[in-house]
Amino acid sequence: MSKDEVFVSADGIRSFIKDVLLKVKVNNDVAGYVAEGLVQTSLRGVDSHGIRLFPHYLEGVKKGRINPVPNYEFKRTSPSSGILNADHTFGHAAGMEAAKKAVEIANEAGTGHVAVYNSSHFGAAAYYALEIAKHDMIGMSFTNTDALIRTYAGKGAFLGNNPFCAVVPLEDGEPFCLDMATSIITFNKVKQHRENNFPLPDKVAAGIDGCETTNAGEATMLLPIGKYKGYGLSMFIEILCSLLTGMPYGPHIPKMFEAPMTDKRYLGHFIIAMRIDCFQNKGEFKKRMSIMVDEIRNAPVMDEDVPIQVPGDPEKAIAKKRGRTGIPIDEKLLKEFINFCKDYNINFPYES
Amino acid sequence: MSKDEVFVSADGIRSFIKDVLLKVKVNNDVAGYVAEGLVQTSLRGVDSHGIRLFPHYLEGVKKGRINPVPNYEFKRTSPSSGILNADHTFGHAAGMEAAKKAVEIANEAGTGHVAVYNSSHFGAAAYYALEIAKHDMIGMSFTNTDALIRTYAGKGAFLGNNPFCAVVPLEDGEPFCLDMATSIITFNKVKQHRENNFPLPDKVAAGIDGCETTNAGEATMLLPIGKYKGYGLSMFIEILCSLLTGMPYGPHIPKMFEAPMTDKRYLGHFIIAMRIDCFQNKGEFKKRMSIMVDEIRNAPVMDEDVPIQVPGDPEKAIAKKRGRTGIPIDEKLLKEFINFCKDYNINFPYES
Repeated sequence: MSKDEVFVSADGIRSFIKDVLLKVKVNNDVAGYVAEGLVQTSLRGVDSHGIRLFPHYLEGVKKGRINPVPNYEFKRTSPSSGILNADHTFGHAAGMEAAKKAVEIANEAGTGHVAVYNSSHFGAAAYYALEIAKHDMIGMSFTNTDALIRTYAGKGAFLGNNPFCAVVPLEDGEPFCLDMATSIITFNKVKQHRENNFPLPDKVAAGIDGCETTNAGEATMLLPIGKYKGYGLSMFIEILCSLLTGMPYGPHIPKMFEAPMTDKRYLGHFIIAMRIDCFQNKGEFKKRMSIMVDEIRNAPVMDEDVPIQVPGDPEKAIAKKRGRTGIPIDEKLLKEFINFCKDYNINFPYES
Repeated sequence: MSKDEVFVSADGIRSFIKDVLLKVKVNNDVAGYVAEGLVQTSLRGVDSHGIRLFPHYLEGVKKGRINPVPNYEFKRTSPSSGILNADHTFGHAAGMEAAKKAVEIANEAGTGHVAVYNSSHFGAAAYYALEIAKHDMIGMSFTNTDALIRTYAGKGAFLGNNPFCAVVPLEDGEPFCLDMATSIITFNKVKQHRENNFPLPDKVAAGIDGCETTNAGEATMLLPIGKYKGYGLSMFIEILCSLLTGMPYGPHIPKMFEAPMTDKRYLGHFIIAMRIDCFQNKGEFKKRMSIMVDEIRNAPVMDEDVPIQVPGDPEKAIAKKRGRTGIPIDEKLLKEFINFCKDYNINFPYES
């Protein structure tokens, strides 16, 4: 943590983001979903996908990439499925609309599947699957991303490090939450190492020639987990999010940071909700879930100082802490936020 | 390939396996599914899960682990889901019953989800998902397995290297088929290295103390792909196959080779079928799939002698070859097969 960071409460940042979005004519529902998604993500410690992306998104609204007032078109295509045209709005709003539709469908049909097209950056996949799990369902969310992982046996990137998330309710407290991309590390980590002039670990990234490199300044691609396995997993997620949605795939997806901010992204997402009570008594299921995760947490550890955790545990711990301390904002981001406050005549929710 | 191998046609081995199973009073449908599953798997080059397991399964029937004449109980629990009590028969038969039910359900409801309980060893997960894809659907199959991967930050194994498979039809020819376990290598590979006194690669296995080892003789656990990612993926698959099915999980699952052959396995599987036409025009979808996989196959390679492949390509190539040459059977397995022929008065389909 840098001494130049300040800490602002989740409520304060949520109001600030929503207020700014309303000023640039984003509709109320969309603004609410974006503010909540970014704040939830930063609270949970997933800083790469949290409030630090807000300036990027705001520029997207201003320049035309993101539609602030979408006309969604939803079509129910079978008892258990539907497709959502997100009309190029924020991925946060598109994903949350789709998650709510998937829950509605699952309530009727046992499971619900929604393919989302004409969307924009998804943010953290966990936001949508966590919503589904509130309804005693297993939630799954998938998105494509632009080309980033080195193709197995190839020298270039074709597929993104397509993330997916699976959330499962426990008897007490926050759910099991596996939110992972198919690369070993994130590109955000590469950028951090680049800024700090730190070398990368071995076998996690490659340069423009496709060769592995530990030089963060030269790294342009990421390596997938488990070699051909992570590459195959990325391709399956691409199929759900690009082929099943009718959206472009891999190298044809406009790049998040490199494409002009006037260009729409044409991203696709896929959302699944599965009612637990279609398979087991839900009380019994959640009880067994809690017993299983406790059993694994209490298994013998390799190092007394490093506890065994289950997916979601690190984020729960950070969320608890940041619920007290507030969310850290670094100097650069703070300046941007304060400028937005000036631009839009809003009070910044931090008193120095 | 060893000089002690013989090659026998797929048709010959299929008949031989089915005939032996009928002799030990396995019912006709079950025997057919097992014979087809094992032969398909060996044809596709997945030798670890193919015909070499037949003697193990046969012993399971004789000793009481596997029920040769199951009374399945299937219950439709919602428009898009059902649960199947497999009555402790072969996983091959249980999985194929479930795949067929999932297709039936998807034809009505758009998607079909079947949780299978009281099952036995699944064989290759691809067998079931490949069946689903024949119906212009995306097929997914999941199974639990006994404890085998080192827990992240732990020193023991809790979860199995739970495999899953996703199959997606292309416009022409065999489908995209990703069939993977969550460990970097298989335990079968460890055993091969042990028999040949070869060291293992770095960071793929651990010994009884939880420490990584390259000594194949000492390796008792496997390492998951992507560290906590593969471990998390295994846990999610465990949730689908153990918690949603009401079956035991991880360390409570009777071990395949170590448990007495009189003990039932109480394994669970999960099967999903998703109709493509609920999301896109299926002709257009399959055409785009074929274009995408060709585009990636034709991307620049790292080494001129190593082509880029997509999941399923290596198996397609081996199946084509073995369709001509027959399936290789090593000396040890051949002896066992010939003994079965003597025991049950069957002609072995190989002329020396």
